[in-house]
Amino acid sequence: MALLSFALRGKPLVRGMLRKKVFPMVQVLGQKSGERQKSGHVSLVGRSLLTLKDFTPPEIEQILWTAADLKTRIKERGEVYTPLEGKYAAIIFQKRSIRTRLSTETGVNMLGGKSYFLSPEDIHMGVNETIKDSAKVLSGFVNLILARMCKHEDVESLAAEGSVPVVNALSELYHPLQILADMQTLQEHFGGLKGLTVAWVGDSNNITHSYMMAAPKLGVNLRIASRKTLDTCQNVSKDAEHLAKQYGTQIVHTTDPREACKGANVIVADRRLKNYTGPEEEKLEKLKALQGYRVTHKFGEMAAKDWVFLHCGPRKQDEVDDAVFYSHRSLVWEEAENRKWTVMAVILCLLKCHACTTPKPDY
Amino acid sequence: MALLSFALRGKPLVRGMLRKKVFPMVQVLGQKSGERQKSGHVSLVGRSLLTLKDFTPPEIEQILWTAADLKTRIKERGEVYTPLEGKYAAIIFQKRSIRTRLSTETGVNMLGGKSYFLSPEDIHMGVNETIKDSAKVLSGFVNLILARMCKHEDVESLAAEGSVPVVNALSELYHPLQILADMQTLQEHFGGLKGLTVAWVGDSNNITHSYMMAAPKLGVNLRIASRKTLDTCQNVSKDAEHLAKQYGTQIVHTTDPREACKGANVIVADRRLKNYTGPEEEKLEKLKALQGYRVTHKFGEMAAKDWVFLHCGPRKQDEVDDAVFYSHRSLVWEEAENRKWTVMAVILCLLKCHACTTPKPDY
Amino acid sequence: MALLSFALRGKPLVRGMLRKKVFPMVQVLGQKSGERQKSGHVSLVGRSLLTLKDFTPPEIEQILWTAADLKTRIKERGEVYTPLEGKYAAIIFQKRSIRTRLSTETGVNMLGGKSYFLSPEDIHMGVNETIKDSAKVLSGFVNLILARMCKHEDVESLAAEGSVPVVNALSELYHPLQILADMQTLQEHFGGLKGLTVAWVGDSNNITHSYMMAAPKLGVNLRIASRKTLDTCQNVSKDAEHLAKQYGTQIVHTTDPREACKGANVIVADRRLKNYTGPEEEKLEKLKALQGYRVTHKFGEMAAKDWVFLHCGPRKQDEVDDAVFYSHRSLVWEEAENRKWTVMAVILCLLKCHACTTPKPDY
Repeated sequence: MALLSFALRGKPLVRGMLRKKVFPMVQVLGQKSGERQKSGHVSLVGRSLLTLKDFTPPEIEQILWTAADLKTRIKERGEVYTPLEGKYAAIIFQKRSIRTRLSTETGVNMLGGKSYFLSPEDIHMGVNETIKDSAKVLSGFVNLILARMCKHEDVESLAAEGSVPVVNALSELYHPLQILADMQTLQEHFGGLKGLTVAWVGDSNNITHSYMMAAPKLGVNLRIASRKTLDTCQNVSKDAEHLAKQYGTQIVHTTDPREACKGANVIVADRRLKNYTGPEEEKLEKLKALQGYRVTHKFGEMAAKDWVFLHCGPRKQDEVDDAVFYSHRSLVWEEAENRKWTVMAVILCLLKCHACTTPKPDY
Repeated sequence: MALLSFALRGKPLVRGMLRKKVFPMVQVLGQKSGERQKSGHVSLVGRSLLTLKDFTPPEIEQILWTAADLKTRIKERGEVYTPLEGKYAAIIFQKRSIRTRLSTETGVNMLGGKSYFLSPEDIHMGVNETIKDSAKVLSGFVNLILARMCKHEDVESLAAEGSVPVVNALSELYHPLQILADMQTLQEHFGGLKGLTVAWVGDSNNITHSYMMAAPKLGVNLRIASRKTLDTCQNVSKDAEHLAKQYGTQIVHTTDPREACKGANVIVADRRLKNYTGPEEEKLEKLKALQGYRVTHKFGEMAAKDWVFLHCGPRKQDEVDDAVFYSHRSLVWEEAENRKWTVMAVILCLLKCHACTTPKPDY
Repeated sequence: MALLSFALRGKPLVRGMLRKKVFPMVQVLGQKSGERQKSGHVSLVGRSLLTLKDFTPPEIEQILWTAADLKTRIKERGEVYTPLEGKYAAIIFQKRSIRTRLSTETGVNMLGGKSYFLSPEDIHMGVNETIKDSAKVLSGFVNLILARMCKHEDVESLAAEGSVPVVNALSELYHPLQILADMQTLQEHFGGLKGLTVAWVGDSNNITHSYMMAAPKLGVNLRIASRKTLDTCQNVSKDAEHLAKQYGTQIVHTTDPREACKGANVIVADRRLKNYTGPEEEKLEKLKALQGYRVTHKFGEMAAKDWVFLHCGPRKQDEVDDAVFYSHRSLVWEEAENRKWTVMAVILCLLKCHACTTPKPDY
C-alpha cells in the first residue's frame, strides 16, 4: 500500500505524497459506500467508479441528480459553473471512442477542468511499464484517471495502486457510464424509473452487465433476450439475481426477443460481438444466429404503448432497422448527449462535494 | 430532416434538441446567403463554410475584415478578446496537417473557445458509423465541426445531417481557408485586392478551385498555368467562367507558365499531385511533365515590378527554388500565420454576431 | 537569418514578423548567457534550453529556485498563479512519452498557458517539410516549442531557424529536463546539493551526459559505472572533465558498480540501451554484459548511510529490484512529479521575467 511506504520513510506524510489531498483509506480504496452527509446529500469524494455494483441506490441517484442539475443549470439556464477549476484528468484509452472521449473532454472543460487524452499509441499501459508504476506516476500529474482498458482487472489495478479516483470508461466486464446516460434519458422521458421494464435484445455484453448491476437498485425490471443465457458472465448473473431479490425487481433471461419485448417500456440494442476476438468464420456464424434479434416495429407492436428505443452507438444496420432508429420512438441522440452530463456528474462527485441546487427528480 | 423528427414526437422542440440554439432552417442548411443586419454588417451566424462559391462578395469581405480586426486588436494591441468562451469545436482530420491544426487550435483558444483534435485514428467517419449518425452525435457535444475529409460530399453530408456549422478544412475539391489566408496576406501587402493578377503555376488542384471561386468576387484576375487545362474540374471551370463574367474579371488557362506570369502581381505555387493516388511510374511521368513549372526569378522578371510569391506549404524544392522561396518577394510566412487569423474569423462569424471595431480595409 | 530577410523588404520590421516580440539577436540565438537583472535575479527570457552545458551555475539555480517557488506556492499554498495566460506551446514528439507529455501539458496549463501535443504521426519533421520551414511556420502559431527529436542536431536546427524559444525534451545526446527534476528531488531530500556524490549504474546515455553537464556546476560529484567508459560520447566526456576541473568536483568512470556506489549518496539507474537500434542478437549480448549492474540493497550497503535511489522511469526489473525500487530509499515518485515543476520553471523562465517570492533554497 502506497501510504505505508511513504510513512516508512519517517518524513511527514505531506512531503512525499503524490496526491494533493490525503483521503481516508476507505475512500482511496474506493470500495466502501459513502455516508450521508449532514447536508442531506451523499458524498462520493475520493472514491473510484469501476462498476455500479459498488454503489448504493442513494449513491446512484446522487450521480443522476447531479447530472440533471448540471444539465438544467448549464444547458437550459446558461449558468457558468466551474467547480473543476484547477483539476486535471487523464483520459486513457486502450480502445478508442469518439463518444466517450468528446463527452468527457467537453464535460470536464465545461466545468472548468483540464483533460488529457492519451491514445493507445501514447500509453502502452502494462507493456512499457507496469500498471502499478503508471498508476503512481499518473497520480503525481492528475487528479483523476478515466480509463478504457481491455481487461477489467487492469482498471481495478489502476484504482488500487494509484492515489487518485479512477473511472471505468468501459472494460470487457462493465460500462457503468453508459447505463447512467441511459437512466438519465429514461428518467427525462418517463418522469421516473421505478416500475419500468427494459428489454435487452442481442448478445449479452458489458453494457448488459452494467444494466444488471443498476436496474434493480433503481426499481427497473430487466428482460435479456440473447442467443443463450450463457453469454452473460455467471458471476454477474448471480450478483444480479441477488440484487433483484433484494430490491424486488424482475430479471428474466430468454432466447426469444418477442418474449422480452412483450409489454416492455424500453427496447435496447447494441453493437454485436463487441469483445469477440475468435476466428472470423465462427463470428459470422454467431452473427447469423442473432439475425432474429434485429429490432423492428414488429417488436414495438408487442411492447407497451409508450415504448422507446435506446442504442449506445455506433450502430450497424443488422441491430435495428432505420424505421425504428430514426423514428420518434428512438431516444438515441438524447442518450448520446447525456453521456456528457452523466460523466460530468461522475467526475464532479468523485472530486468535489457538489450540492445540487435544483429539485431532485423522481427516480 | 432532424427538426422534423423531433417535432413529430409532440414534445416541445427544446427538449430533444441537440443544438444549443434553434436557427432558422435556411441557416441550418447553410446554403442561403446571410442578410445585411440593421447594424450594417453581414451576419453568417449558423451557416456552414464548405466552399466560397456559396458566399457573396460582401460575405467574403466580412470574413476578411473580421480577420484583420482580430489581428489588429489581439496581435498588435494585445487586446484580450474571448467571444468564444463556452464554445466547443471538433477538429476532424482524415488527412493530417500541422498548419491547419495549429492555426485552428491556437485560434479557437485565443478567442476563449475549446477545441478537440480527432486524428484519422480517432475517427473512422463513415466506416465504424455512418456520417449521418456521427454528425448527429457530434452536434450534441460541440458547437462547430471543422473537418478535413477526403471526399467533398462527405463534408457536405456532415453539414446536412448535423445541426451545427461545419467548416471545410480541405477536401479534394476545395480549400477555402487557404484562399482566405492568401487574400488577407495580399491585402496587407498591396493595400487592396481589386485589379491584382494572380498567376497559378503548377498542376491545378483544390486550392486552384478555391481561387477560381473567390478571385472574381474580389476583383482579382486569375491565370492558371498547368500541364493541361483538363486538370481543373470541369464543373468548377464552368462556375468560374460564369463568375468572371458576372464580376468582370479575367480567368485564363494556359500550359505556358511564362504567359501566366507576364505582368502578374502574384505568383503562386503548390505541392504537386496532392491527390494523385495512381501508379508510382505514372506519377513520376506527371512530375516530369511539370519540370518547366518550377518558379524561379526568371518568372519573376516577366512579372509586374511589385510581384510577390505565395506557397501554402509544405514546400518541396521542385516547385520553387530557394532564391525565390527565401527571398524578400516571398510572403509565405505571413501567409502561414494568416491561416490563424482567417480561420479565427470564419469560426467567429459562423458562431457569433461579431462587430468589427477597426475600420474596414480596402478590398 | 530570418530578421535580415524581413528587414530587406524595406517594410517596418513589425509587419512581417512572425514572433510576438522582437528579442535582441543574442537571445534569439539562445546561446549566450543571460545577464543579472537589477532585481538581482537571472533572466533567461528568449533563450532556448537545448543542454545545460549552455547554462551557468546561477542560471541553473535560477531554474531550480523557480521550480521550488512554483511548487511551494501552487501545490502547498494553493495559490492560483497564471503568468502564461495568452502563451501557446507546441509539444513535438518524435518519440512518445507519458511523463514528459503530461508533466508539460499539466504544467503549462497550471500556469495559464495552452499546449498542443503533436505526435510522431502528426509531425513528420524533416520529411514532409524541412526543419527550417517547420520552425518558421510554428513560430507564427506558438510562443515556445518543446521538442523530443531523435537527433540532437535537429533540435538545434529548430532553435536556430525558428524565432521562439526551444526546449530539448530529450535527444540522443542530452535530456536536461530529467536532470533538473533529479536535482530538485535531491535538494528537497538532502536540503542542498554541494558535496553530494551520485553513482550512475548502467550503460551511459543521454541522461548520463546531462548529469555530466550539470553536476559539476552544482558541486555534485559523479561516478559513472558502465560496461566500458567508451559508452559515453567522447566530446561530452572532454567537456565534463573540463567542467569538473573548473568547478572542483570529481567525475569518475569505472566498469565496477561497487566502486561507483561506495560512499555514494545517490544511486541512479535507467532504462538500458535506450537508443540501441542494432541487431537483436547483439542487443541481448549487451544486456547480458549489464547483468552485474542491477541495483540491489547490496549496492546500498556500500553506499553512504543516507543513500537514496533515483530512476527516471519507465523501469524494467533488470535495472533495479523491487526491494530497492519500492523501498523508502527510492525517491522515484517524487522525481517523476518534479518533472512537472521543473519543466514549468523552464518554460516560465524562457517566456517571462519571473521573480520568485519564496526564499532561495540552498544548492
